[in-house]
Amino acid sequence: MMKIDLNSDIGESFGDYRLGCDAELIQYVSSVNLACGFHAGDPMVMEKSVRMCAEAGVAIGAHPGFPDLMGFGRRQMKLSFEEAKTYIKYQLGALTAFTSSCGLKIQHLKAHGAFGNMALKDETLARAICTAVAEVDPTIIVMSLPGCCVVKEAQKMGLRFANEVFADRAYNEDCTLVARGTPGAMIEDPDLATERVIRMIKEKKVTAITGKDIDIDCHTVCVHGDTPSAIEIVKKMRAALEAEGIEIANLSDR
Amino acid sequence: MMKIDLNSDIGESFGDYRLGCDAELIQYVSSVNLACGFHAGDPMVMEKSVRMCAEAGVAIGAHPGFPDLMGFGRRQMKLSFEEAKTYIKYQLGALTAFTSSCGLKIQHLKAHGAFGNMALKDETLARAICTAVAEVDPTIIVMSLPGCCVVKEAQKMGLRFANEVFADRAYNEDCTLVARGTPGAMIEDPDLATERVIRMIKEKKVTAITGKDIDIDCHTVCVHGDTPSAIEIVKKMRAALEAEGIEIANLSDR
Amino acid sequence: MMKIDLNSDIGESFGDYRLGCDAELIQYVSSVNLACGFHAGDPMVMEKSVRMCAEAGVAIGAHPGFPDLMGFGRRQMKLSFEEAKTYIKYQLGALTAFTSSCGLKIQHLKAHGAFGNMALKDETLARAICTAVAEVDPTIIVMSLPGCCVVKEAQKMGLRFANEVFADRAYNEDCTLVARGTPGAMIEDPDLATERVIRMIKEKKVTAITGKDIDIDCHTVCVHGDTPSAIEIVKKMRAALEAEGIEIANLSDR
Amino acid sequence: MMKIDLNSDIGESFGDYRLGCDAELIQYVSSVNLACGFHAGDPMVMEKSVRMCAEAGVAIGAHPGFPDLMGFGRRQMKLSFEEAKTYIKYQLGALTAFTSSCGLKIQHLKAHGAFGNMALKDETLARAICTAVAEVDPTIIVMSLPGCCVVKEAQKMGLRFANEVFADRAYNEDCTLVARGTPGAMIEDPDLATERVIRMIKEKKVTAITGKDIDIDCHTVCVHGDTPSAIEIVKKMRAALEAEGIEIANLSDR
Repeated sequence: MMKIDLNSDIGESFGDYRLGCDAELIQYVSSVNLACGFHAGDPMVMEKSVRMCAEAGVAIGAHPGFPDLMGFGRRQMKLSFEEAKTYIKYQLGALTAFTSSCGLKIQHLKAHGAFGNMALKDETLARAICTAVAEVDPTIIVMSLPGCCVVKEAQKMGLRFANEVFADRAYNEDCTLVARGTPGAMIEDPDLATERVIRMIKEKKVTAITGKDIDIDCHTVCVHGDTPSAIEIVKKMRAALEAEGIEIANLSDR
Repeated sequence: MMKIDLNSDIGESFGDYRLGCDAELIQYVSSVNLACGFHAGDPMVMEKSVRMCAEAGVAIGAHPGFPDLMGFGRRQMKLSFEEAKTYIKYQLGALTAFTSSCGLKIQHLKAHGAFGNMALKDETLARAICTAVAEVDPTIIVMSLPGCCVVKEAQKMGLRFANEVFADRAYNEDCTLVARGTPGAMIEDPDLATERVIRMIKEKKVTAITGKDIDIDCHTVCVHGDTPSAIEIVKKMRAALEAEGIEIANLSDR
Repeated sequence: MMKIDLNSDIGESFGDYRLGCDAELIQYVSSVNLACGFHAGDPMVMEKSVRMCAEAGVAIGAHPGFPDLMGFGRRQMKLSFEEAKTYIKYQLGALTAFTSSCGLKIQHLKAHGAFGNMALKDETLARAICTAVAEVDPTIIVMSLPGCCVVKEAQKMGLRFANEVFADRAYNEDCTLVARGTPGAMIEDPDLATERVIRMIKEKKVTAITGKDIDIDCHTVCVHGDTPSAIEIVKKMRAALEAEGIEIANLSDR
Repeated sequence: MMKIDLNSDIGESFGDYRLGCDAELIQYVSSVNLACGFHAGDPMVMEKSVRMCAEAGVAIGAHPGFPDLMGFGRRQMKLSFEEAKTYIKYQLGALTAFTSSCGLKIQHLKAHGAFGNMALKDETLARAICTAVAEVDPTIIVMSLPGCCVVKEAQKMGLRFANEVFADRAYNEDCTLVARGTPGAMIEDPDLATERVIRMIKEKKVTAITGKDIDIDCHTVCVHGDTPSAIEIVKKMRAALEAEGIEIANLSDR
């Protein structure tokens, strides 16, 4: 049976500030990326989020970000290798306290926002992320885009990795995402988005923005759950995938 | 052979700010309390400090504090049980990332500054600290003052604990510390301080500020290393203890 | 003509986190208390909020809080006089940059959350707040509860002050608020709340929780606007006050 | 009589962390750049520093930085125009609370660290800095390197500006600084550094790293005072300048 992981960001509340529809969302995904306190999340939120995932049987990944709460980790920061590596380690360790309390292991790590985006093309950052994982727990799966620097570094270091695809984004011929703002960058029709995902899973192919079919090997699909309508889309995509005989399963169950 | 642990705070630098004489200090102590990023310390400092301790063979303890860098964790904050517990878990987990990278375990946990002081008499905070340890790793030793709320909670929960004494502080008859500012609260003569420590170890007795001898059961002595002259005092005390046939050994080696 | 000020908290968003219904709320109040970046708010939010108030013609007050974003400034912190004074000055100054850019003056200052609550009974904190105002701009009105330490200190220093009352809270005979959690502490019926406010303005009297009528001298009524239903209540109260011939006017227009 | 301003960074301590030799340094300079709480400094430090400057008669400038205490504001961050502008306004306003308490005005503003460096070549950041000054107080002098984006924007907006030179840095032919790390980038001989400064003031010329003489128009010389030996160098340079008949005077006294 074909399997795919659905992952989404959760645990992005902070103090009195609420963000996202975590409780509903985790009913439809198989893995979550949990904020670790630098760009979002705090210890109370992490405790609650981890317990919620434990009850729902959803696999937990770390979602470490830049130390920039005011910018939600979305602003580029120029960090050295040591800074980047230790920031990942710190956040990964912090999350481990909450997962191990529930008898759970951290399944994967995906760098958040600008940290993750910069690392796609920045070897130093990519190496910092993978070295952090290797030093803290080399069984953790590194999640990033197919063929990017992070995945390449993970492969070099012999780490497990997961290729992530986006249902709502167009692809260039080299498998990179078409930059937001470019006409056609966003796949706005949910049905088309789901069709594309099904084809990526079944045929390992997707039509690039140029019209050419390209090979793509995906292990996990990123979905968004920040609004009730976003959750509706996830729910429908999940049903459509299951109707095609594709099992929604986390990365550890592959 | 009689044994005693000498513990001291390290890893309190932050970013470009340097504090303490960590490299010298760890030559003379057997355990350290390492700041975890809330009141002091940052991921770069933690990485470096843990490596330094690993090389020196010094046992590592977590030194979690209030989320108050501007006040160095020395200002009272009123936290709920859940806040206190999750703040300890977060910091303990963060430190674990650095120790496990070096193949080390965290030996003990001692709450820092106002967090530690408030918990002496505050059952809720004391229970929060011990619950955090129990949830993350129940083999970790909880360090606090003899007979205080923290030690009592640790005993109730079946956790290991270590009684800490101070060479440079006077004691009340109930084994609590004489408040700073009270005449006679500080033992300023290093030789007298050392004599008192030797008697606490050998006879399990100390003369309270009232003049009466009281029972005291100590497992570890807190020493300070923030200035070169403080380090001189530690060095001499260590030599004096060894001359009395007392072995300096960390808590795990008891 | 009788006049009263209606004040409410705004500008409590932070980074990507949104809080409150500021744009609607400022249509119904005459003064706002604007967060200054310590417990809530950030420079982008402050800029936007000040411009919005300038356009709406609403008077602006500073709403400085404890340096505790994670606790939204609602947790008690023990600050020294100097710490408290300089934290107020810093936040007041920061807000001034945004108001003066719009050609506006800061009308008043009200300490937020635990800072404000602790200062009701803590002379040192009260004096710190008033000294900060006196040092930065002695024409700023200090807002707090009738008869509390803050108002007393303001009077001693010759500062202008404004007595604030709450429509939805019960009063003790000494004019202090009945503690939340006490039965009867909250006035839950909006019509009763409005009636009480009208009587406070017209007769300078309110019925204490004991049933006895007490004297109360109010300059401003605190209203809440964090939810659409809260805004409905404000809207109705404003209409009811105007129907009684009471003009809604900020403190400077008294 | 020829005049020159000597400026230096102060107020970079934070909480319990001490940095710099501010008390000695301000005896030898005519202007200071005072940290405003984002990359360094806190309200207590700002209050103390401003009072110290007021007593010494030294002119005060704002030294706003990136919101990155952990990186001391030295790491590049990608901010939008609005973010950059409001961060400068916030910090400038905060400092104003302390200067106005002492009856002083802020003389100048110089962006700190990576903020200042990025703005040399980044028109958006340069415009954000100048717009912030224009909106808060257009009489404040904008300080940056001769011919850089910041100075050009200040000129465009009709703001006052001050060209800053470095005694210990080599220049390219286009008046930009030779990048650190390039051989010859640092002028390590204090006597040569002083000679170069005297020539810049008297002849408005300096020898570029290529050996060619270039024109340079300087209003202020940046000096460092973070160590006792750095202060010795400042002291000697000041004496040498005075011996040449050059008066040390702040920018407002030009």
